[in-house]
Formats: sequence, structure tokens, C-alpha cells
Amino acid sequence: MTGLEFSILATDGAARRGKLTTAHGVIDTPAFMPVGTAATVKALTPDQVAQTGAQVVLCNTYHLMLRPGADRIEALGGLHRFMNWPGPILTDSGGFQVMSLASLRKIDEEGVTFRSHVDGSAHALTPERCMQLQHQFGVDITMALDECTPFPATREDATKSMRLSMRWAKRCKAAFVPRPGHGLFGIVQGSTFADLRAESAAALREIGFDGYAVGGLAVGEGQEQMLATLDVTVPHLPADRPHYLMGVGKPDDIVEAVLRGIDMFDCVLPTRSGRNGQAFTRQGALNLRNARHATDPAPLDPLMDCPASRDYSRAYLHHLVKANEILASVLLTWHNIAFYQTLMRDLRSAIESGRLNEFAARFLEDYRRPKAEEP
Amino acid sequence: MTGLEFSILATDGAARRGKLTTAHGVIDTPAFMPVGTAATVKALTPDQVAQTGAQVVLCNTYHLMLRPGADRIEALGGLHRFMNWPGPILTDSGGFQVMSLASLRKIDEEGVTFRSHVDGSAHALTPERCMQLQHQFGVDITMALDECTPFPATREDATKSMRLSMRWAKRCKAAFVPRPGHGLFGIVQGSTFADLRAESAAALREIGFDGYAVGGLAVGEGQEQMLATLDVTVPHLPADRPHYLMGVGKPDDIVEAVLRGIDMFDCVLPTRSGRNGQAFTRQGALNLRNARHATDPAPLDPLMDCPASRDYSRAYLHHLVKANEILASVLLTWHNIAFYQTLMRDLRSAIESGRLNEFAARFLEDYRRPKAEEP
Repeated sequence: MTGLEFSILATDGAARRGKLTTAHGVIDTPAFMPVGTAATVKALTPDQVAQTGAQVVLCNTYHLMLRPGADRIEALGGLHRFMNWPGPILTDSGGFQVMSLASLRKIDEEGVTFRSHVDGSAHALTPERCMQLQHQFGVDITMALDECTPFPATREDATKSMRLSMRWAKRCKAAFVPRPGHGLFGIVQGSTFADLRAESAAALREIGFDGYAVGGLAVGEGQEQMLATLDVTVPHLPADRPHYLMGVGKPDDIVEAVLRGIDMFDCVLPTRSGRNGQAFTRQGALNLRNARHATDPAPLDPLMDCPASRDYSRAYLHHLVKANEILASVLLTWHNIAFYQTLMRDLRSAIESGRLNEFAARFLEDYRRPKAEEP
Repeated sequence: MTGLEFSILATDGAARRGKLTTAHGVIDTPAFMPVGTAATVKALTPDQVAQTGAQVVLCNTYHLMLRPGADRIEALGGLHRFMNWPGPILTDSGGFQVMSLASLRKIDEEGVTFRSHVDGSAHALTPERCMQLQHQFGVDITMALDECTPFPATREDATKSMRLSMRWAKRCKAAFVPRPGHGLFGIVQGSTFADLRAESAAALREIGFDGYAVGGLAVGEGQEQMLATLDVTVPHLPADRPHYLMGVGKPDDIVEAVLRGIDMFDCVLPTRSGRNGQAFTRQGALNLRNARHATDPAPLDPLMDCPASRDYSRAYLHHLVKANEILASVLLTWHNIAFYQTLMRDLRSAIESGRLNEFAARFLEDYRRPKAEEP
């Protein structure tokens, strides 16, 4: 496939510094994609998102197919225009959210049927429908429909689930409409079983995708098992294509995964935590609700190039959180996304200069050092 | 008093185009002050507020004295630094909110005692304490403590209440610490009784203030009686000092009041309405929750120099409101404040060019024309 150009500019161990070129712009990798579930990165304007250095956002097919609907978005000129985000957009397949949010789910060979958590209406999601929806959105990166295997899973269940996802992946590839600057990613499943992961990766390679995602992780297995699964999965992914670890993660998860050859990430953590009064720093996460911040004139990080990190005291942020002010959500989300983007920029620089191990060791030591009382 | 320089650049009938110079910058009048109750114009960053053209914000002494407290704000460098708003700030006296929000209120000659709506703690507000609090905040414009006479009031109650406010005004003047660029405003009371308003204005003139506010309006008397009260009040205010109509109002209220010689306004309407899905336009207020906006690709106002007004379709705003997204509050508040600031700029231009009556007639006709179904 030639939908998305991907070039690797530098490597450092298994880690790669790349450039993924889409119809709506370039994504420097390793990249973190802020989550914009319902066509908005919650609490931020697109300008604020872009100011953090984020180049691509992820939206959720499940939410958008239910509200406002793919026909509506298409009629309004596509998702980019609808949400006023001119850069690249990736949408997930909807499969994961169907399993976590919808009711009366029924999964079979054909696909999945369910009822909307918004209004109870009945819907179906098949590989073909999933491709059509994302085509209507007009997104740059389309994800194949898969079943996110629940954790823990027996070997038998994991095998059955993975093989269903692989058959769906093939149908997705057949239904996807290729066009320049637009690409389709397949998703490796197989739970924590090394041979199933290898089988899944081989099946996807055989079909051929623009990028390869690792799914079914960050679902309760813990960091150690997640990283062990990456160790036995990433080597089976085509080296010349982007590797995307779905739904991950905490800053230290990301550093560990980049060391293992992952190029793309998404996670609700920085946005959701921001709305809950938490701020990420190099010294770990802070809870701004904590009384010890009430009199602190220091900003979250005076060296970061983000107004939210630099121009407001922790005392003021504490006040906003306590008073349930919307601006608390805005500023903490903004800072958190900027923190993640700063981390990604640092990781890219470290790979370019061949000092990733040094950077990662130092970052992880600072980040994981036991804290007095947070959060 | 010489704390605040006020120069009148042009007049048109009773209307004035002025410049009020404070320690933190110039306020072009007629001016609308967005309300930043708890040291934040709800949902907006200070940069967004400034981008609308707003030059001054109003904060509420009652809220800030309770949380985070005046000592805390003073220790953190004052209210400007605390909320990262470098421009002029006006604080109200706290009296109005004590009456509407606090419990166990007791008012006597000395002042008012009450319990906090936040945590039930006991507090007292006297004219002297009120001056001290606003001094600690470091605001540019301090408001005298008054009793906002409830509406309707008997002549006897209105007289008693107004005269208490006038005795408090004298104590405020005595307690206020004059310094360059900082000023104290007195507040005319007297309900809807013309002779009481005249008596109150005379009492304030006798004391001498940097500016003169008209209080006790927009409390249920209706637009007609409000304007009639302005007609019998403004002529008694010193012509060379700013005139501030507190808590007003709807766009058409503001146009009518400017025609009658009012220079300053504040109101929660644009911010509160924004959080409730309403947008102000020249054709009246729109309710973005209304299904008729669901497919409308038009922005709120493509000619306004505000991203929120220009860069997002009504269909997208409808979607955000329906999905309870924070960005709905952000964008609609931003647009509404920008709409108010555009109106003030238009009013200032119209006065400068001697065409205020023409502008006002046209604006009021458009704004008041009966609408199909809104809100």
C-alpha cells in the first residue's frame, strides 16, 4: 500500500525517529495523539491543542457514529472541517467503545450489534460499515475493526478472538478505499501469548497495511506484562511501517514503549486527569486539589513553552480546582497535553542524537522516585 | 479626588465617549466589563478575554473574601497577578452577593454579618472592612459598600435603606486609601423614586468620588422602569466623572443606557448564557440546543474578529452543546463576550461620529424584531 509515506530518519536501538506523511500534514514520530472523543479534545480549542505541538488527534468512531452521525459530518464537509482541526486525524474502529460503553452487545462472525448509550437506538458495526464510517469522516488514518480481547483471557478465548479480528482485518482491507495521504492500520491481538501475537502479526503482514497497531494492552495486565508483550510483538511488525500502541499511557509507559520500537500513542490520561485536577510533571503527577499547593506561587513548569504551564501559579490552579471552575479543566488539560508533547519532542531529539538510553534512564528515575504525598 | 483620570473625547446627546485611566491601563468608554466572579471569567483564559477587546474585568469581593481569602491573594501579589490579568480590575463591594447568596444575614448601622455559602463560616462586612479587602486585592476601581434595596420597596423602606448606604459611603470614603491610578466609586440608591435618587446623588457628590454608579436596578423592575429611573438619576451625577450602571444588562438595555449617559456596565448575561448554550447576535439571542441549528454550516458571525464567532459552524456548536462538552461553554462564552465588546466599539464609534441615534435605532430594531422560535 502507498497511502501513507513513512520514512525513518534515525534509529537508536529498537527506537525510531520517523516522519509519517498524511493528506493533512506530517506527523513526527514517536508521536502522542491527544484524544478528541466527540470531535473535541475536551476543554481545549484546536488552537490550544496545536500550540502544544500536537500534530494529530484521535477521535472515536463509536461516539461520532451515534452523535452527530457520519452522514451529518460528511454533509458538513468532513471531520476536519467539522471540528476545525486542519491537521491529521486518526479514528479508532469503534469496536473498543462498543464493548465498554454500549448495551445489549452481540458479537458474531459478521460483526457486532449493540444499543447506543446515548439514546438506546440499535446499531451494527461490521468491518465494511466501519470502513464506510471512517471514509465519511474523511480521516487520514483509519483503524481496522477488531475485537479488543478482554484481559485476562484463556489461551482458547484469546486464539478465537484474535482469529476473528484477523478475518475482520482482511474484510477491512477489502472495503477500504485507498487514496493518497490516507491509510489503513491493522491491529495485532493475541492477549499476552507470544505465539498468538506472532501469528496475528503474520496474518496482518500477509494482508498488508499502512501501519500496524498493538491492541489489547493497557487493559489491566500491568506495565510489566505490557512491556513483555511488546518485546515479543514489535519484532514481528514490518520495520518500515509505523507501530502504534493503542490506549497507552502513563509517561513512563511511553518511554518504555519507545525504547521497544513503538512510534505512535494515544491515551485519555492527560485530558481526563486534567479535568480531575491532576497535572503531570517530570517528578510525577500532582494533585492540585491538595492543600499544600494553596499558597505556592510557582507555576507548574516555568521552562515549558505553554501558557498554562508557565503563567499561572499552583496556588491559583488550586483555587480554580477547589471552586470547580471550568478554567481549571482548561489549564490543566492544556498543560498535560503540552507535557506529553514535550516528552515526545525530547524522545525524538534523544533518538536523533543517539542518547535515548541516557535520556530514558534519567526521565524514569525522576518520574518514578517515591513522592511525599501525591496524589 | 484625583485617583482616576477621566476625559470625555466626544458627546452625542447625553451619551459620552470617554477614556478612564487606571494604574493598569486605559478603559475606553462606554465599556462593558466581563464578570470574573471567582478571579476567572468563567470558561475563558485571560488571553481569550483580552482578544475580545475587553479592557477591564469585574470580580466579586464576596466570593474572593471567602475563597481563597484576601490575605492569600495579597500574599500572592494581588488579584492581577493571581488571576494573570494585567489590565484594570473593578471589584464590587460584596454587599449585593451577601444579600443573594449568604445565609443568616443581619444588617445594622455597623454593617452586615453573615455565614458563607461555601462552608458556613461567620463573616462581617463593614464599610471599613470592605475598603480593606479591596485594598488587599489591589484593584484599580473599588466600590463603596451599599445595601442594594430590594424591589419593590415602599417609599419608607427605600428611604431608610438609601440613607444607610449614604452613611456607609461616607465611611468608605474615609477608609479608602487614595493612590494614583486607583479610585473609589459611590453608588446611588433610592429604588424607583426620583426624589430619593436625587437625594442620594447629592449626598455622594457632597462626599466626592472618582466615579458614580447607579445601583438597585436590573432587580426585577423591568426595562421601562429602569430607563425611567436612569432618566431622573443620571442628570444628577457629576458630568465629568464616569457613570456606571451596575449589573446591566441585555444588549438593548446597554444601548438605551448609553443613550442616557451611562459609561460603564457589567453583567453575567454573556458568560452565563454561554454556559447555557445561548449565543447573542444582532438578530437576538439564539439557543444552540435547538435542533434547527444541527445542520447549519454557517458560523455565528463570519464578520466578527473572534475565532469562536468565525471558525466553527452552528452545527458543530449544536453538537458540542448536546454532548455537554466543555468546549461549548468556552466557545459560546467567548463569542458572547466578543459580541458585547463589538457592540461597545460600535457605540463608541457612533458617538465619535455623531450618529448614535441612527445606530441605536437600527440596532434596536434588528435586535427586538420578533423571532420565529428562539430561544
